[in-house]
Amino acid sequence: MKIHEIQAYLEQYFENVELVGSGDVTIDGPAKIENATKGTVSFVANEKYSRFVGTTKASLLIVGEETNTSQYNDHLNFLKVKDPYTAFVFVLQKYTRPRLIAAPGVASSAVIGEHVELGENVSIGEHTVIGDECVIGDNTVIGSNSVLMAHVRTGRDCTLFPHVVCYNGIILGDRVTIHSGTVVGADGFGFAPQPDGSYIKIPQMGIVEIDDDVEIGANNTIDRATMGSTVIEKGVKIDNLVQIGHNCTIGENTVIVSQAGISGSVSVGKHCMIGGQAGFSGHLSLPDRTRVSARAGVTKSAAKPGQTLGGFPAQPLRDQLRQEALLRGLDKMKRKLDALEEEFNKSQSSKDQKSKRVTSKR
Amino acid sequence: MKIHEIQAYLEQYFENVELVGSGDVTIDGPAKIENATKGTVSFVANEKYSRFVGTTKASLLIVGEETNTSQYNDHLNFLKVKDPYTAFVFVLQKYTRPRLIAAPGVASSAVIGEHVELGENVSIGEHTVIGDECVIGDNTVIGSNSVLMAHVRTGRDCTLFPHVVCYNGIILGDRVTIHSGTVVGADGFGFAPQPDGSYIKIPQMGIVEIDDDVEIGANNTIDRATMGSTVIEKGVKIDNLVQIGHNCTIGENTVIVSQAGISGSVSVGKHCMIGGQAGFSGHLSLPDRTRVSARAGVTKSAAKPGQTLGGFPAQPLRDQLRQEALLRGLDKMKRKLDALEEEFNKSQSSKDQKSKRVTSKR
Amino acid sequence: MKIHEIQAYLEQYFENVELVGSGDVTIDGPAKIENATKGTVSFVANEKYSRFVGTTKASLLIVGEETNTSQYNDHLNFLKVKDPYTAFVFVLQKYTRPRLIAAPGVASSAVIGEHVELGENVSIGEHTVIGDECVIGDNTVIGSNSVLMAHVRTGRDCTLFPHVVCYNGIILGDRVTIHSGTVVGADGFGFAPQPDGSYIKIPQMGIVEIDDDVEIGANNTIDRATMGSTVIEKGVKIDNLVQIGHNCTIGENTVIVSQAGISGSVSVGKHCMIGGQAGFSGHLSLPDRTRVSARAGVTKSAAKPGQTLGGFPAQPLRDQLRQEALLRGLDKMKRKLDALEEEFNKSQSSKDQKSKRVTSKR
Repeated sequence: MKIHEIQAYLEQYFENVELVGSGDVTIDGPAKIENATKGTVSFVANEKYSRFVGTTKASLLIVGEETNTSQYNDHLNFLKVKDPYTAFVFVLQKYTRPRLIAAPGVASSAVIGEHVELGENVSIGEHTVIGDECVIGDNTVIGSNSVLMAHVRTGRDCTLFPHVVCYNGIILGDRVTIHSGTVVGADGFGFAPQPDGSYIKIPQMGIVEIDDDVEIGANNTIDRATMGSTVIEKGVKIDNLVQIGHNCTIGENTVIVSQAGISGSVSVGKHCMIGGQAGFSGHLSLPDRTRVSARAGVTKSAAKPGQTLGGFPAQPLRDQLRQEALLRGLDKMKRKLDALEEEFNKSQSSKDQKSKRVTSKR
Repeated sequence: MKIHEIQAYLEQYFENVELVGSGDVTIDGPAKIENATKGTVSFVANEKYSRFVGTTKASLLIVGEETNTSQYNDHLNFLKVKDPYTAFVFVLQKYTRPRLIAAPGVASSAVIGEHVELGENVSIGEHTVIGDECVIGDNTVIGSNSVLMAHVRTGRDCTLFPHVVCYNGIILGDRVTIHSGTVVGADGFGFAPQPDGSYIKIPQMGIVEIDDDVEIGANNTIDRATMGSTVIEKGVKIDNLVQIGHNCTIGENTVIVSQAGISGSVSVGKHCMIGGQAGFSGHLSLPDRTRVSARAGVTKSAAKPGQTLGGFPAQPLRDQLRQEALLRGLDKMKRKLDALEEEFNKSQSSKDQKSKRVTSKR
Repeated sequence: MKIHEIQAYLEQYFENVELVGSGDVTIDGPAKIENATKGTVSFVANEKYSRFVGTTKASLLIVGEETNTSQYNDHLNFLKVKDPYTAFVFVLQKYTRPRLIAAPGVASSAVIGEHVELGENVSIGEHTVIGDECVIGDNTVIGSNSVLMAHVRTGRDCTLFPHVVCYNGIILGDRVTIHSGTVVGADGFGFAPQPDGSYIKIPQMGIVEIDDDVEIGANNTIDRATMGSTVIEKGVKIDNLVQIGHNCTIGENTVIVSQAGISGSVSVGKHCMIGGQAGFSGHLSLPDRTRVSARAGVTKSAAKPGQTLGGFPAQPLRDQLRQEALLRGLDKMKRKLDALEEEFNKSQSSKDQKSKRVTSKR
């Protein structure tokens, strides 16, 4: 692709895409600025990387509109845009070779249940099992060795990688992506303790609803509700090895990083950010735009939207930072206390001695 | 099902089931009390929910024996029992539609090894692979795309959901349930360090034994023993994404919540409760009825049964609460120390001035 | 196998293997020293276990070269070697029955893509799917129900247990072992935030490279790089349920224990040891021979090789131990402060009273 073609492509997304240099140079693919070679495109969105501009071997850099590009040498061409990071992501998408997740149509080794509705252009991989009365939307691709139990419904343009399991009754919206090893809709963890110390199982009769544009990573577990639905709202992004308990609701465009664990009946607001290895007690709710730091342990609901919570038990960032400062200062505090005690004792004993002297004078 | 039928059904489990209202009303299914509709059954087991009794649209409530039901309006009927929560769980079980995990018999795409013994009424799902010399008990159901390597033995009435893997030699009792993505019997993590910094693998020759009535959630890993057995005793319940290391023993009716990690050779007593994301050092033991709080890190054995352990390193609850109170009080403590130091310095300097005055008087 | 055969076998690995007792006794298999029976072999590598030597029923013990074996009774024979632990591991390997992971050749239900190169003596399990243009090295075994997407390359003598997924383009070295449920090469977690709060996906165009002699446990997730490679170097050992983010490099012979989470673009040095449930912030690097304690949270790079880091935020062991000691001493510190305050107030009030007396005298 030539630089002027990249420019034209980006003009679909950005109002102004200014070319500095030649539009006629061929770009073979993207690269990181620090190890880019001739014929590649890279970007600078962050001051930290601007030091590489003088030395990069890239033939094209995507940079911010304000960037001064006058001092650089001739082999380097620039496209200036408002958001060079997002522009580069679009360029990455352009250069990405499509992955074959399953060949078009239904693989001959796949097993399709009764009364299944397959949309147009559906691809079902080898040995995949689609249960009775499933509905698969147009253009949806389901990788090999996956299992959809009965009554699963997917929207259009979904991508399920190989080895995904959806239990019965799960509902997926449009453009949902699920990576390998993820289990959607296994039973919520509910058992009623009995007087003899044993447990009886609480049937998990609900489902999981996953809305449009959700992407779910590998080896996650998203449990079905006891009654009603576990809900993953539109645009949510989930990393790997995350646990979402029964009856949770994860709000629109919330991001959950790897190994976080969300206990049952938790409600997370929209546009939240849940850090890696964070944990939640059950039955609590977080308002919109809450940020939970990595490894934080959230033990109670928060009311104010937009806070950052950290630590265990999690508290607002300011409180947590003060707490951490106090902990760091503990050594100094101990020394101060010991010194003060010593000083005080000295002053007391000198007073005592004075008193004694006084006494002895009597 | 009519209310008097529900009453008769519950009388199998409870000595007294008292009906207040009409037994002739038809109940279509269960619901949460706060969003129940006409024709549903709900319950009150907890004071917190009794505020909904006046407004619920449910047609039947299961309540405690002591509940005063006189003031409520006509559409509401009651069944009074000793344990309304457990009674409601039985009602849930009654209304749960059976899930088809695998069709009766052996699916034509399943691959059954040599010398396999299949009990009566066994169901083996599509593309499931049963290794040589496995023994599958009566009424056991194994979902699609599962793999049992050689010499696996299951008891009767087991349920393995799709995508379960049992390595060779694993033994399951009766009524064991395993959810999708769980791997039972992968090699324990054992490597002997060599002088050059590399490792040689310690063969993991043991097995995993899972006793009757155990339920294991999704995407867990339960490793085989180096020698002997990793043992999950009768009635244990395990959530999702839990790690159980080689040579562990998990005692009867113990419950382990999501993302807990139990290192090798740990012995957990009976009737214990292990919180989510808790972790264990290896080679330690906990006595019966120990409760490990969520995210606790247990670093040594405990001797006294029935304790609650929390924090990292985990300590008895009382110690942990005192520690937490001390931490919360750190700010106050620092201010007190600073104030005391200031007062002391003031008192010293005033003494010094007095001394000076005295001195100057000389 | 007779003892003199075990002796001869160990002489392949050790310069001196001294027999004390009879070489003609038959050994049926290995056992733990504390519950060994007649005809078994066990070992003592650790003082802690030498107390069992007098009572063990084992017929052969592998012990250190310095061990005094004169006082023990006749049924017990000894092989003395420099490293009895490693020697016993070799004996375990000798007695381990080979596991059948997949029958030789390509199972009839396996699906092999176009232009696939299969080496000699390859075994491909039932229902396993090998994508187009994969290359599988000699003697490599791939268990049932696994999926290799297109362009995966394995070296020779690899072992993939059932239910392994390798995404497109993954490269494995020789003698790589991967356990069930592990997903190699799913997309790294990268999304570019948009002004409306939604995200666009950053294509993950890179791969994962896994070098020779790596062993990876069950249900791990190792993400592909955004550009370039996620690299697992030679000899690395990974336990279960571990997350390795995109663009990480894990150095030679590093060991990672269960449920650790390594964020994107982290570089871990060679011969490191990462404890269970440890976590890492992104974009940091650790030098060779770093030890990260269980549950530590590493938030910044370290420069000095060979350190032990613990706590959250992780700090060098000495600092962490001091910090923990301060925390344990907090109760005492509080009591000391309260006592000092009381003493000081007493001393002040007595002074005030004296002053008052003085005053009143005027």
